[in-house]
Amino acid sequence: MKIVILGSGNIAFHLAKAFYDKKIEISQIFGRNEEALKEISEKFSVPFSSENLADADFYLIAVNDDAVQEVSKKIKKENCLVAHTSGSLPKDILEGNYRKASFYPLQTFSKSKELNYHEIPFFIEGENEKDVELMRKIALKISPNVATSDYEKRKYVHLTAVFACNFVNHLFARAKEISDSQNIPFSWFFPLIEETTSKILKIEPKQAQTGPAVRNDERVLKLHESLLTEEEHLKIYRTMNESIKKMYEL
Amino acid sequence: MKIVILGSGNIAFHLAKAFYDKKIEISQIFGRNEEALKEISEKFSVPFSSENLADADFYLIAVNDDAVQEVSKKIKKENCLVAHTSGSLPKDILEGNYRKASFYPLQTFSKSKELNYHEIPFFIEGENEKDVELMRKIALKISPNVATSDYEKRKYVHLTAVFACNFVNHLFARAKEISDSQNIPFSWFFPLIEETTSKILKIEPKQAQTGPAVRNDERVLKLHESLLTEEEHLKIYRTMNESIKKMYEL
Repeated sequence: MKIVILGSGNIAFHLAKAFYDKKIEISQIFGRNEEALKEISEKFSVPFSSENLADADFYLIAVNDDAVQEVSKKIKKENCLVAHTSGSLPKDILEGNYRKASFYPLQTFSKSKELNYHEIPFFIEGENEKDVELMRKIALKISPNVATSDYEKRKYVHLTAVFACNFVNHLFARAKEISDSQNIPFSWFFPLIEETTSKILKIEPKQAQTGPAVRNDERVLKLHESLLTEEEHLKIYRTMNESIKKMYEL
Repeated sequence: MKIVILGSGNIAFHLAKAFYDKKIEISQIFGRNEEALKEISEKFSVPFSSENLADADFYLIAVNDDAVQEVSKKIKKENCLVAHTSGSLPKDILEGNYRKASFYPLQTFSKSKELNYHEIPFFIEGENEKDVELMRKIALKISPNVATSDYEKRKYVHLTAVFACNFVNHLFARAKEISDSQNIPFSWFFPLIEETTSKILKIEPKQAQTGPAVRNDERVLKLHESLLTEEEHLKIYRTMNESIKKMYEL
């Protein structure tokens, strides 16, 4: 079976790497950014092109959401399977006379960061059982965590991930601004951050909550508000504390 | 040197355990909750009392912020060192004619969760260099991460921790509500959560940001808002996205 990856950004890079590591052969990596394609090509021994899309049985469109539809039109072949990797697009966004699918890896991809591919959950969706089975086999070579998921469910998977990953990272970024402002090395918070995460693998997050809001400690809440000079910090502080109080009916 | 811990909650429990593990002898654990005291006493071979505070050189008040002052009055001895463990109280909250100090472990303590004590940063403050050295020696037996920090700095350490830990945990709790509502096991998000945390040990969180807000992807932002039926979820969603956009000037 011939596989082609379309795209040259973070997801394309990491999928190419995961396929390479697991000895799943890729016929071509196709995209616009020659420099990025060349890097992937050299690192993971895969031919690249920015002009002629190779013939394949399975095309994997690993580009930003807003480019998926446009890129999908480049595939003129009919008897083939085409999947996108987006958590927030239906498979029917794909425009062509091929069989449509979704192959969604639930992970946060930054090029400069190594990943444990064997832990990435994949959510797949196809038009028929045969396509689903094919994608399941491919995904299972990378990770044991493979589930089928239609668009209705996938949207919520992605939304949950935004809370549990994107927003969490932003809190780290805002926290670092506060510690930086006082010349406190952010690395001092790493053990706390690691414990915060590892705790919820054992205890439900609702049970694991600590801090002034869940103790309804008005003195500390007011003290902290008086320290926050940046508007965005204060907005986050109040929104999160209000939400904590509501969750515990304080 | 005789050490007494006052308190029987999460911090007292974990300090007693850390001291026990590192063979730092505790003369007594003192508090009100007999049942909790008894458990700590049995687990970590330390005498307990809820009535007669033992004589000691170093009293460690490990109770909730709002009880620190009251508990500190129970220490009538003068020639001794008394420290509280709070991140958001000055050492002068302590009421007595003893030498006052702060001994603040930066960690989130849940009784049912084992901890890597050797990674806990301690922030200490005393009235004189001798007291600081004494506390530093004790803290260093538990962890290599020991810093001096006056109240001005400690307040910001605690505030940063609220963003990087308490709020992060609350995001996990809210995320789980969303995945629960669709019968998606929250454990599917564990690899993503672990990667989100481990990534910032290598990349600055500001550089590690992913997700629809930093891409300024209005379609996905609107899609997600349409899925969020709970008011608190929506408030968090909007506050965090606005803050992300401001940080990246989008």
